[in-house]
Amino acid sequence: MAVYTDVAAEDLVPFLAGYDVGELLAYKGIAEGVENSNFLVHTSRGYFILTLYERRVAERDLPFFLGLMEHLASKGITCPQPVKNRSGETLGRLAGRPAAIVTFLDGMWIRRPSAAHSGALGEALARLHLAGADFAMRRENALSVRGWRQLYAVCGERANTVQRDLQTVLATELDWLEREWPRGLPQGVIHADLFPDNVFFLGDKLSGLIDFYFACTDTLVYDVAICLNAWCFEADHSYNVTKGRALLANYAKTRPLSATEWEKLPLLARGAALRFLLTRLVDWLDVPPGALVRPKDPLEYLRKLRFHQKVTSARDYGVATP
Amino acid sequence: MAVYTDVAAEDLVPFLAGYDVGELLAYKGIAEGVENSNFLVHTSRGYFILTLYERRVAERDLPFFLGLMEHLASKGITCPQPVKNRSGETLGRLAGRPAAIVTFLDGMWIRRPSAAHSGALGEALARLHLAGADFAMRRENALSVRGWRQLYAVCGERANTVQRDLQTVLATELDWLEREWPRGLPQGVIHADLFPDNVFFLGDKLSGLIDFYFACTDTLVYDVAICLNAWCFEADHSYNVTKGRALLANYAKTRPLSATEWEKLPLLARGAALRFLLTRLVDWLDVPPGALVRPKDPLEYLRKLRFHQKVTSARDYGVATP
Repeated sequence: MAVYTDVAAEDLVPFLAGYDVGELLAYKGIAEGVENSNFLVHTSRGYFILTLYERRVAERDLPFFLGLMEHLASKGITCPQPVKNRSGETLGRLAGRPAAIVTFLDGMWIRRPSAAHSGALGEALARLHLAGADFAMRRENALSVRGWRQLYAVCGERANTVQRDLQTVLATELDWLEREWPRGLPQGVIHADLFPDNVFFLGDKLSGLIDFYFACTDTLVYDVAICLNAWCFEADHSYNVTKGRALLANYAKTRPLSATEWEKLPLLARGAALRFLLTRLVDWLDVPPGALVRPKDPLEYLRKLRFHQKVTSARDYGVATP
Repeated sequence: MAVYTDVAAEDLVPFLAGYDVGELLAYKGIAEGVENSNFLVHTSRGYFILTLYERRVAERDLPFFLGLMEHLASKGITCPQPVKNRSGETLGRLAGRPAAIVTFLDGMWIRRPSAAHSGALGEALARLHLAGADFAMRRENALSVRGWRQLYAVCGERANTVQRDLQTVLATELDWLEREWPRGLPQGVIHADLFPDNVFFLGDKLSGLIDFYFACTDTLVYDVAICLNAWCFEADHSYNVTKGRALLANYAKTRPLSATEWEKLPLLARGAALRFLLTRLVDWLDVPPGALVRPKDPLEYLRKLRFHQKVTSARDYGVATP
């Protein structure tokens, strides 16, 4: 939630001259996303988002992200649409960083989503997966099961400073997931970070999806598992079966899940919980003392993990599966 | 440059219902100002800035700031105009904080202002002073000469950790300024913080003034001295006489300075330099180790102070004074 790079008007004007977006009237750094610097840009043609990609995003991945947004938008998914410059490129360079302009989406993210919201999310996620089916590019998911051992290596030994016995919990779970992780489930483009702050609503109507910078090629139902974790737990970390049912039923109405996908959902939900537990733990342990920004609580995901460990079938999430 | 308070869409919608601003379509936290949380709000009626006043702004001062912006706007000064709610109030409450909505101003601030920019600033500053002449409210300037002793008490003893002998420089200058500070010069509303980032341009045309949260009742030419420091030095801290001449000549064309005001300008410029040196020093020494945000360099203002100490008359700033 920060702007890492200052952009001078004196530099932005010539940059924008490379695009057919009209004359610059105003721009503001916005507190959106944690990886990049974002600016809301007002021109005589309307409003746009300018993103400067900071070090945490690999430049080689940018064609995948921008190409995906173009592809999805062309398939009718409401997401930011990259604007091409006069040379037909979506990727430019500003203030020493890769930079892109995308269309501005109206809508607000919902801090306390209801079952209506999680239901709408379920349908949008399925539509995203269907729309991504014929996207030609591939990107490995560095934050799926094959990447967790490395995250554990970074934070495992200090895990017990956050909670007693956490190291053992992590190690045991990781061993089990590496052994049991399913192969051969339907794969495709997944968003991989479709938390409420990346989903816009106007009233109860879902109006757009944003922030595709974790998108990758992976097991589709793993994306469902990530959303189940992100959308269907209450502030006290209890699972809300009504929200879960709405999400899963609406997803399955649009893209039916196979019996094996349903069967593996609890395992994938454990994996998704471990993934966010590990990355949050790394961030938590990485914060210098005295820093103003408190990272997100990793233990929220320990509680979610424990919930999924007790789940015996996808029925426990609130749906009548085949 | 941060958003300190999160505002949920679920809370913003009912808040906006109290205003005649149409329906909420989008809002983004923006990196603007250092004291408050600011949001750019898009409604069916247009774009607005929502400000939540954080602890560093005294709530009792808000009627002065908001009333001043209303007054100046009514006099034709382009500045954010507070929007009244349905009860006719400009000050509301949101997320536990005093909050106000003001109109959105197009324009960009200039990182490397030219003499044309400082000239335009000089004229705008004079127009601001004239427009403020019949503003009925008063607010003491806590950051003028009477407030510096207290700032010195906070940072004086640690000043030498930043630069050798700085404590003595500060103490000597403070003693001298307290003794010599002029009384009886024309007073009125001053902006008191009209740095380049608070002045918007569209092309070379000054399009608006923002951030009135240091505005107060004080010696008018002291505001000129603040701007001279903020606009007329180069990145290497050398004084640019062309920019200074443009600022002062354009100011004086709109609001002529008396012989005494010209005479006291170098002294007031030293005062203005000491004021920012002291506040920046306090911020500098207050930063916790490891913090991500580096405060502004106090020594920039030590160099400016030294320049003004050598000035013998306002002629040294580039103008032929009476």
